Amino acid sequence: MARPRVVIVGAGFGGLTCAKKLARAPVEITVLDRANHHCFQPLLYQVATAALAPGQIAWPIRAILRQQQNATVFMAEIDGVDLQAKVVRAGARRFAFDYLVLATGAMHSYFGHDDWGRDAPGLKRIEDAIEIRRRLLTAFEAAELCDDEEERRRALTFVVVGAGPTGVELAGAIAEIARQSRHEFRRIDSASARVVLVEAGPRILPVYPETLSRYAERVLARKGVEVQLGAAVTDVTAHGVETTRGPIPARTVLWAAGVRASPAAAWLAAPADRSGRAEVAPDLSVPGRSDLFVIGDAAAVKQESGLAPGVAPAAKQMGAYVAKVIAARVAGRAPPKPFRYAHAGDLATIGRNAAVVKLDRLQLRGFVAWSFWSVAHVYFLISARSRIAVAFNWLWDYVTFQRGVRLITNTPRQPQ
Amino acid sequence: MARPRVVIVGAGFGGLTCAKKLARAPVEITVLDRANHHCFQPLLYQVATAALAPGQIAWPIRAILRQQQNATVFMAEIDGVDLQAKVVRAGARRFAFDYLVLATGAMHSYFGHDDWGRDAPGLKRIEDAIEIRRRLLTAFEAAELCDDEEERRRALTFVVVGAGPTGVELAGAIAEIARQSRHEFRRIDSASARVVLVEAGPRILPVYPETLSRYAERVLARKGVEVQLGAAVTDVTAHGVETTRGPIPARTVLWAAGVRASPAAAWLAAPADRSGRAEVAPDLSVPGRSDLFVIGDAAAVKQESGLAPGVAPAAKQMGAYVAKVIAARVAGRAPPKPFRYAHAGDLATIGRNAAVVKLDRLQLRGFVAWSFWSVAHVYFLISARSRIAVAFNWLWDYVTFQRGVRLITNTPRQPQ
Repeated sequence: MARPRVVIVGAGFGGLTCAKKLARAPVEITVLDRANHHCFQPLLYQVATAALAPGQIAWPIRAILRQQQNATVFMAEIDGVDLQAKVVRAGARRFAFDYLVLATGAMHSYFGHDDWGRDAPGLKRIEDAIEIRRRLLTAFEAAELCDDEEERRRALTFVVVGAGPTGVELAGAIAEIARQSRHEFRRIDSASARVVLVEAGPRILPVYPETLSRYAERVLARKGVEVQLGAAVTDVTAHGVETTRGPIPARTVLWAAGVRASPAAAWLAAPADRSGRAEVAPDLSVPGRSDLFVIGDAAAVKQESGLAPGVAPAAKQMGAYVAKVIAARVAGRAPPKPFRYAHAGDLATIGRNAAVVKLDRLQLRGFVAWSFWSVAHVYFLISARSRIAVAFNWLWDYVTFQRGVRLITNTPRQPQ
Repeated sequence: MARPRVVIVGAGFGGLTCAKKLARAPVEITVLDRANHHCFQPLLYQVATAALAPGQIAWPIRAILRQQQNATVFMAEIDGVDLQAKVVRAGARRFAFDYLVLATGAMHSYFGHDDWGRDAPGLKRIEDAIEIRRRLLTAFEAAELCDDEEERRRALTFVVVGAGPTGVELAGAIAEIARQSRHEFRRIDSASARVVLVEAGPRILPVYPETLSRYAERVLARKGVEVQLGAAVTDVTAHGVETTRGPIPARTVLWAAGVRASPAAAWLAAPADRSGRAEVAPDLSVPGRSDLFVIGDAAAVKQESGLAPGVAPAAKQMGAYVAKVIAARVAGRAPPKPFRYAHAGDLATIGRNAAVVKLDRLQLRGFVAWSFWSVAHVYFLISARSRIAVAFNWLWDYVTFQRGVRLITNTPRQPQ
């Protein structure tokens, strides 16, 4: 009898964990991803700000699963699911499944203003990080070339929209780039760059305790970041942003304000919440379809304390859980207890020597939190080579106050 | 009195050396480059074949010249020179000069068939290397997805046109990728990939002694590279190449066959040779214009033994020489003796453990040559950080038989 076919779409933290946990199950696994690599998203902002190279936080999916003989990896972009025929579609190709796990993640949401995306890129994929790096570095180049004072001010103004962890990390890093490169320019003072962190809510890092939010605000202020609270963005153009607190002329705007789930729910004709996340049963399956699962950022997973958060540990736990459900089903064993998310803690860095950490009852900040953050991230990196390389890069940058990967690539034919 | 203005266009080996050697001269230097980085071109093929990361062989020009207070760096693409007004044009911008040094290098030449470029990219810039890396890796992905046998054969056929050092290095590296990734695919045998090195002449590496050429051919054959000599390419399409020895159906074609100088000669209205190189006087100035210099691959520099070759050491020597000429002129000293190129030797690698080296009377091959090649290239890398990182990458790859940077980025919206 042929072994059951498990198709996993998306090789992020959720999908990859699910595939690995099924290594010993008598199933045929197919992993589909539009990219050839798994990306360690928590460090993506460091690629965007030229501290790490793309290859240090991304690894070929097929290299990760090389040893796992029951897994086949294809680079293919999904465009739909045929629920009757039990087939996933990717262009002209079809992948038949007995079990389907959608781990397709989330993308940025512009709250109905998708046209803002052109002038305010978000940070989800390696390509986004390379594009943001290009924009940040090109802005300083344009300012150095510029003869018009107003235009130069605009080139040296950087707006980050949204003060969650990604927004805070980006704003802190941009302020550091500006300060670190001051001796490389002859006509501008790069340290005079204006970095504005725009947040609609009343404080930054809203999931953290208020004391840590206030601490992070003080650290950002010390780094020269201007934090604008209670400022909702009403328009984004090539000239800058409009907010409820007034306009900010800026050449570079980055979007870290909102995410929307990928179309997993729509493909499965499943109910979805406001952010497009598929509402799943306690075993993470689609209600009424015990062969379809949605995990990670694409799923709305209800817990006693609210929805499970869109973070890497949650996705990993869901991936491992669904692997257990499928393995039990295939073996004819009783299903595991309903999924329960175990929250390990929250970590965010604000730049050199400063971070905030919240673990259960423990709150850390400053150098201690920053050290903890660094060690934790190096530890969770998938490949041994990357662990060494990232640690080396960080140590070198720390000692030299430099950033190693300041390349402008993907340049349009004419510089802007 | 204002200090003389020296404008240097192009921050390759020639331009950068010229700028550095003028560090103590009483001149104002402006360095213009369309990229923000200096690229260590001899290792570009390693980026194209996923062994090194772009950031390991490229560094921001302004970081290199950070300490040199008489140098200002602009990222700007030149489109002409006004010889009367002594001004370089870059779009709407103007850069006035008293001395102009054009070090704008060369690009690939398709012998009048520029349309071949779309299907057979060459390797000159970091962007080229990233694009070639994308094509190489995507070809294996496409083959793994493919159900049609003929189509799969075509996806697994790689043609490299031109058997100079770059072509030999590329072909050898592609054969190694194919062999190294054999355990990562489930439906194809990546090691069965066909790698064809197409050369119009009677032997590969024509600048080397015939014994070394024959040795390199044997090493390539052992690695599984098919060398076709006396095969001139007559057409390149998305389906493959046509040669005088017959057609080769292939999804991936790379161009390493010919170079053409950048338009320096045209901008200066100077005489040029067949490859577009500006014919310069013995002091590397344009005949009749002692304020204009052309160096590196953009110049045809006659020596007793023929033209100086288009290699990094030649460009560096020319850059240093022109710096001396300008410094002497500014100081009112006698000009230096005519430029004389000192040939240090030729090095080319054919892959793991194999290279050919020719130094004056010494010829090396095999592991000894390969070790020499590795040490020499690490030694000449500009930044200390890159030296460590590249050495670490190579060591890791050598021990693990892996390649560290197998990322497909810049993916068009739909995979091909």
